[in-house]
Amino acid sequence: MKNSVLCYIEQAGHYLMLCRNRKQQDENAGKWIGVGGKMEEGESPDDCLLREVREETGFSLSAFRFRGLVTFVSDCYGTEYMHLFTADGFQGERIACDEGDLAWIPKEEVPSLPLWEGDRIFLQLLAEEAPFFLLKLVYRGDALTAATLNGHPLHRKEDGTWSL
Amino acid sequence: MKNSVLCYIEQAGHYLMLCRNRKQQDENAGKWIGVGGKMEEGESPDDCLLREVREETGFSLSAFRFRGLVTFVSDCYGTEYMHLFTADGFQGERIACDEGDLAWIPKEEVPSLPLWEGDRIFLQLLAEEAPFFLLKLVYRGDALTAATLNGHPLHRKEDGTWSL
Repeated sequence: MKNSVLCYIEQAGHYLMLCRNRKQQDENAGKWIGVGGKMEEGESPDDCLLREVREETGFSLSAFRFRGLVTFVSDCYGTEYMHLFTADGFQGERIACDEGDLAWIPKEEVPSLPLWEGDRIFLQLLAEEAPFFLLKLVYRGDALTAATLNGHPLHRKEDGTWSL
Repeated sequence: MKNSVLCYIEQAGHYLMLCRNRKQQDENAGKWIGVGGKMEEGESPDDCLLREVREETGFSLSAFRFRGLVTFVSDCYGTEYMHLFTADGFQGERIACDEGDLAWIPKEEVPSLPLWEGDRIFLQLLAEEAPFFLLKLVYRGDALTAATLNGHPLHRKEDGTWSL
């Protein structure tokens, strides 16, 4: 099992996105995601959030929200519990990230980036200002095979999106 | 690290409490807590909730709320992330629990039971209908030495309660 944090920092209609193109053996290689990382012994989710954002971006967060808890189940990795935050208050100078390239991307362009399929589900929930949610995503390799939102199964529609 | 679930099932002003008096080597021995247990590989927090409540009480939950995430840091155990739920809808016949004695206790009498000190903090937050919270509790042995609510330190008052 792994506990992690993911954060979408927002400013003027953009999200700060990270293209994971630096680390060898990165399960996210080539994908765009938010910033974040693994929770360490003794850290709460918000402790980890502040540390990871500072390490990867140079920013100190002053305003953030815990938006949902995403359970990833996969045939390749152990179960991961990802604590999903958004943040719209921060100070400091941006630094280079050693895990990939950072870029401010207009929110409406984010879905056309190379993303994990399930990320589109929670990005849509964030866009809709959904109340705090429990989302479970089941992967076989790179393919999303099942998704459950607050205990209710989602179904894949013809256009590839998932809904209740 | 350990991920777990704790649930206070409520009915007519009572909580279903468990007196942990059955298992040897129980870190909760002698304490009263809600029902719950450890998350297993492949389970989301709500999967674990439904399984543990069924195993320990015989009840199938039909209505529940995720109220907060509690990070326990201790000098005796690894960090634990406890997913705190309340539930007010359930069906089924109650069974005996092999971890201790179950009893419906009036909510106002719960604080006078033998509890972990930090449990009084989150029981108070539940009573106040606090919005979803992140609570971090730091123990040395049985003694609570620090508490942080949504990133803000709590302080112990003269009467032993903790507040911002």
